[in-house]
Parts: sequence; C-alpha cells; structure tokens
Amino acid sequence: MPRFVVTPWEVKGKVDYDKLIQRFGTQPIDGKLLKRIEKHAKQLHVFLRRGIFFSHRDLNWILDMYENGKKFYLYTGRGPSGHTHLGHLIPWVFTKHLQDVFGAELYFQLTDDEKFLFKRELALQDAIGFTYDNALDVIACGFDPKKTFIFSDLEYAKTLYKMAIQIAKHITFSTARAVFGFTSQSNIGIIFFPAIQAAPCFFPSMLKGENIPCLIPAAIDQDPYWRPSRDVAPKLGFFKPAQIHCKFIPGLGKGGKMSASQPETCIFTTDLPELAAKKIMNAFTGGMGTVREQREKGGNPNICSVYQYFYFLFEDDDEKLRKIYDECKGGERICGDCKEALAKRVKKFLTKHQEKRERAKNIIQKFMLRD
Amino acid sequence: MPRFVVTPWEVKGKVDYDKLIQRFGTQPIDGKLLKRIEKHAKQLHVFLRRGIFFSHRDLNWILDMYENGKKFYLYTGRGPSGHTHLGHLIPWVFTKHLQDVFGAELYFQLTDDEKFLFKRELALQDAIGFTYDNALDVIACGFDPKKTFIFSDLEYAKTLYKMAIQIAKHITFSTARAVFGFTSQSNIGIIFFPAIQAAPCFFPSMLKGENIPCLIPAAIDQDPYWRPSRDVAPKLGFFKPAQIHCKFIPGLGKGGKMSASQPETCIFTTDLPELAAKKIMNAFTGGMGTVREQREKGGNPNICSVYQYFYFLFEDDDEKLRKIYDECKGGERICGDCKEALAKRVKKFLTKHQEKRERAKNIIQKFMLRD
Repeated sequence: MPRFVVTPWEVKGKVDYDKLIQRFGTQPIDGKLLKRIEKHAKQLHVFLRRGIFFSHRDLNWILDMYENGKKFYLYTGRGPSGHTHLGHLIPWVFTKHLQDVFGAELYFQLTDDEKFLFKRELALQDAIGFTYDNALDVIACGFDPKKTFIFSDLEYAKTLYKMAIQIAKHITFSTARAVFGFTSQSNIGIIFFPAIQAAPCFFPSMLKGENIPCLIPAAIDQDPYWRPSRDVAPKLGFFKPAQIHCKFIPGLGKGGKMSASQPETCIFTTDLPELAAKKIMNAFTGGMGTVREQREKGGNPNICSVYQYFYFLFEDDDEKLRKIYDECKGGERICGDCKEALAKRVKKFLTKHQEKRERAKNIIQKFMLRD
Repeated sequence: MPRFVVTPWEVKGKVDYDKLIQRFGTQPIDGKLLKRIEKHAKQLHVFLRRGIFFSHRDLNWILDMYENGKKFYLYTGRGPSGHTHLGHLIPWVFTKHLQDVFGAELYFQLTDDEKFLFKRELALQDAIGFTYDNALDVIACGFDPKKTFIFSDLEYAKTLYKMAIQIAKHITFSTARAVFGFTSQSNIGIIFFPAIQAAPCFFPSMLKGENIPCLIPAAIDQDPYWRPSRDVAPKLGFFKPAQIHCKFIPGLGKGGKMSASQPETCIFTTDLPELAAKKIMNAFTGGMGTVREQREKGGNPNICSVYQYFYFLFEDDDEKLRKIYDECKGGERICGDCKEALAKRVKKFLTKHQEKRERAKNIIQKFMLRD
C-alpha cells in the first residue's frame, strides 16, 4: 500500500513530492532551469521561488524553442463539478504570469462532460451551470481576452469530437486502463474521455495545420492525462505537450488536499468574505493547546494550514513570510492573531475577486469558443 | 465454431435466418403480424411478401401505439466507408415505404466517425467524402424532405455528443465488450461509439422532451447496436426502440453478403450502367455447364445470384417471378438470356437512380442536420 495516492480523481495521504516525481517519471525544476526562466521573467514568480511549481516535462525544450523564435501556447483547464476554490486558482494565476511573460495564447478547457460522466449524482445541467460559474473565475484572473480561449467540452464538442477521434484511434483500452485505472465497470463515456482531454494539446496543428509547442501548467495530479497525448503525438506528426506541475494547497482541516466535498476545508471564490474569515478562524494550525504554552514552546508552522495559506497565496514577500515563520516558532506569534491577519487578507482578496467576477459576466462571450 | 457469423462488422458463411432469430433473440414476422401491417399499407410491400424483412423487436407494440394515435418515427443509417451498393438500398427503399404508409419522420445517421475509427486505413477526409456521396443515394430513394433529417456524426457532433454521454454513462465496458466483442486492443473511440449510434433512438425525447416511439428498419447484422439502447431506455425514462430486420442480398459471386471490398460482387449505385451489366454477365448462377445440359436437367435458381436479384429488387410481380423460377428449373430459361434480362433492368434502374442522385446535389442541404 503506497503511503499516498495521486490520480486525476483522488489525492490521498501526505504527498511526498520528491517520490511523486520518481513515480510519475517527471523532472524536478532545478536551479539551472529557474535561472533560465528568470532570464525571461526578469523576476522569478513567487510560485517558482517557493517550489510550488516544482516539476516539469520538456520545459527546457520549450525554452529552447522559444529562444529560437518558436513561440508556444498554454493549455490548462478545470473540471466544473462545483464552485472554484482557492486551490484551483494556483495554476491559473501562474498561467496568467506565463501568458504575460511569454506573450502566449491560452486554451482553457472546462471538462463538463468528464464531470458528468465521472460523478454518478451530477446532472448534466449542473455540470453545464458550473462551467459558466467557473469560467467567471478564470476571467477574473485577468487573462488577455485577445489571447485567451475558454471552451466547454459540451459547447465545443463538434470541433473537439473530430479531433478526439483522431487521437482515440491510437489509444487502446489496454493503455487507457493502465494509465487511468479503468475497469470493466467503467462507463464507455469516461473511457473515451482521455481523447477529449488530449485534443487541446494539438489545437493549432489540428485546427490550423501549424505545429506549435504546447505547455500545460497544472497540478501534478493531472499529469496522467497527457501521457497518452505524449505517446500519440509522434504518430500524428505533432510535438509532445510539455508540462509544468504544481503542488496542492492544503485544506484548512488537518492535512490533505483542499476538497470541495468538505466545504469547511475550502475557501470558495463565491464565499461571502465573512464566511471565509470564519473558516479561517476554525482552521487547523500548528499552535499549542494554550497561549501560555505557545509563548513558551512556540508553534509549528510546518504543519499549520494558516501558514500554508500565507506561503501559497497571501504573503508574496519572502522576508515577511520568514518573519511569520520565525515569530511562530519563537512563540511571539499567537494563532488567533495570525488567523485574523490571514482572514483580513483573504477577505480583501475575495472582495476584489468577486468584483472582477461580476465584471467578467459582461465580457465572458469574448472569451468563449463555441461551435 | 458456428457455421455462420453475423456481427455489425462481419457477415460470414451461409446465414441461417431462422437460427439467427434464435441466436439474437428477435421475433419472426408471422402471418398475423403481416395481416396487421397490410391493414395500414393496403398492399403488402414486396419485401414483406417475400420475407426479405423477416424479423423484428416490438413491432406489435409500435402498431398498438400507432393504432392508439401515437405516431412513431423511423431511424436508420449507413456507415460511409465507400460507395453505396444495391444491398444498402434494401432497408432504405423499405424505410421510404414505411414513411409513406405511416407518415413517419425519418432520422438517417451517417456514421463517418465509426468508419474512421474502425478502418485502420480510412482517412477522416475520405469518410467525410463518402458521407456526402452516400447521402445523395439516400435522397435519391425519394424520401420526403419535410420529414427526413440526414446527419453525419461529425457534422452533428455537438448535439450527438451531448446525448451520447448521457447514454454512455449507463453502458459499462463489460456490457460493450459482451455485445460488440471489444478487446483490450480496441481503441477508446470505437468503444465509445455505440453511445453515438444509440443517440438517435431517443432524439425526440432528448431534443424536444417528447417521448416518441422509434422504429429502426435495418439489416439484421445491425441488431446488436441497439441492444444497449434497449437496456438503457428505461433508465432514462424513454421507450425502447423497436426494430424490423432484413436479410442480406447475396453478392454476385458464390454465396455470402455483397461486399464492397470485392467490387466485382457488388453493383454500386455509381457504376456506369454498362459496367454493372458486365458484372451481371459474369455473375455466379445456378446453371449447368452447357446449354444442352441445362435444357435437359434445368438450372437451380435457389443458389443463383441472378435469380436473387430478381427476387430482391428487380421483379416485383410475384407471378412473373414464379415464372422465372419455373422456367429455370424446367430448363426453358438459359443463363445468358436470364442475365441479359436482369442487366437490362439494372441498367434502367441505375440510369434513373443516377439522374435522381444528380438532382439530389441541389437539394441535399434541405435534408442535412448540422450543428
């Protein structure tokens, strides 16, 4: 029994990211690669400085191509089974950064079909509803409307299906079973779905006959989805999609990924700021039983979800982050105050994000691809 | 080893249609049912009189519904992997008859996706090309443009995919494997395809929310395709599709189905009439080695492909057909003359059909559904 499980549908246990790199056969983002990226970005993004984006496939090749004048495009996505939570924003915020730095076009896939096929209880109409709900969050991240194409698998099915069957012809059930763990009881829709998720890896080739490198920023659990794409690419005469992988922001409860199925462990972008603050005030921390004990022994930021929120999203300044860490360890910082400080930032963030979300309703059609 | 094989992809050996009814678990069309149909049709269609349409599922139920004022619609189709041959026309001619008698709407599916996915060597563009080529033959059969909707799976994929995933969610790989004989080496596109072929069984329910009975006229080899549809129907709250099945017109060679992969055994609707005549002059017959022998012993119309062509398509008059049979058996009819008589009719038919095909080019857009 492995101590942790990471698949596109399940993240369980405490993830050892070094082990995961070995298990998945990806490459770590090392100092040399960071330097290469820094050259283009001027300043390294906080997610790279902190190892939140930590693993890749073929990123050096993408940079080789770029430096030789061959631009790449970005592809990422989201399975719309519910509201967006802050964990989902991490790859999107980073994708926006890559778009800015490299002037890249972005294809953003909303896999309403997958969620409907995979979740027994999810009605089709609800998956479609969440597609539009989630698209607002994507747009609120500030992507360039001229370079960003958002699509729902159901709305863009005519184009996607035609591409997907060309990919599917090269993927046997045997391969799909090995990669995704399908069984005889898997439904035939979800078995086909990997071909739909593979299609955007080859959009420019298949839609316009231009073979353009593709870079996929995504959480590491999505990596298996693009393994068949990488296998199939040479058979179709296309480039293999490159990838850059991030870690999961922990939930507000004890350990584990943020899970939409336990709403108290997640902050949703649609949460009233006051509700979000309340969730933070109830979060699991690395603090001691009493204030007195904490003053004496100090807290443990390494296991603290509140600290993780500063680390991932709410304290960009490395100096200030270190100060939080040190003060916690030294017993100078008390959980109540620390939570309040985080809650204040989260409330501010949500208020602003929700304004952008509202404005996104007026421009959503500019972004959406449809048949 | 069964003495004959009938699957949607392969027909091998001499088909015993009574055994096939047992094997597939369908119902024979008996005298009582023929009487019921005759009441509506005024005169029984030659395909029913001669047992060319010989098997069904739920046809009595369809007539019960119809007699109680609930109309049904028709659904049939074609896999466009090549030109249309005369064997393909049999279910279409009969479908046209049913449309006339029952005033039924028809949905006609062209499964370009299936053919691409199933045939290793078939390019997507060629499957799409045959879609339009074959649609001309469908239209040439004289269907009512106001009641007939022809669609290519690829052109109508947006609508179809949305319906298909709702069906696919209820079909496991295990079921699909049992019905279609898929293996681990089957590609994930062809595994999903049965859901695409099932969708038109529920068009009015899924597109307009009206649960309308569906009757599928098709060759018996297609029956497996609608078994999962019949299983899934009650889960979705829809009627099970009813079916009426026909036999295969034999090829011009010795025994077996007409096969597009052996062009000398088939008459294509696009064959020059003279070429078709030539194929008939070279056809396998039940005649004796010499004219003299035949005059003495008579021929065997039961194994004669030329006789079968009269029987299936080129002699509607039962009296005249019997005369051909008797004269052959009695040695009065010689193969050369008989072939010439058939060739004359086939040439006349083709000339007329090809004119209608040409005219169809101007009206094809009236028939085609697209997204």
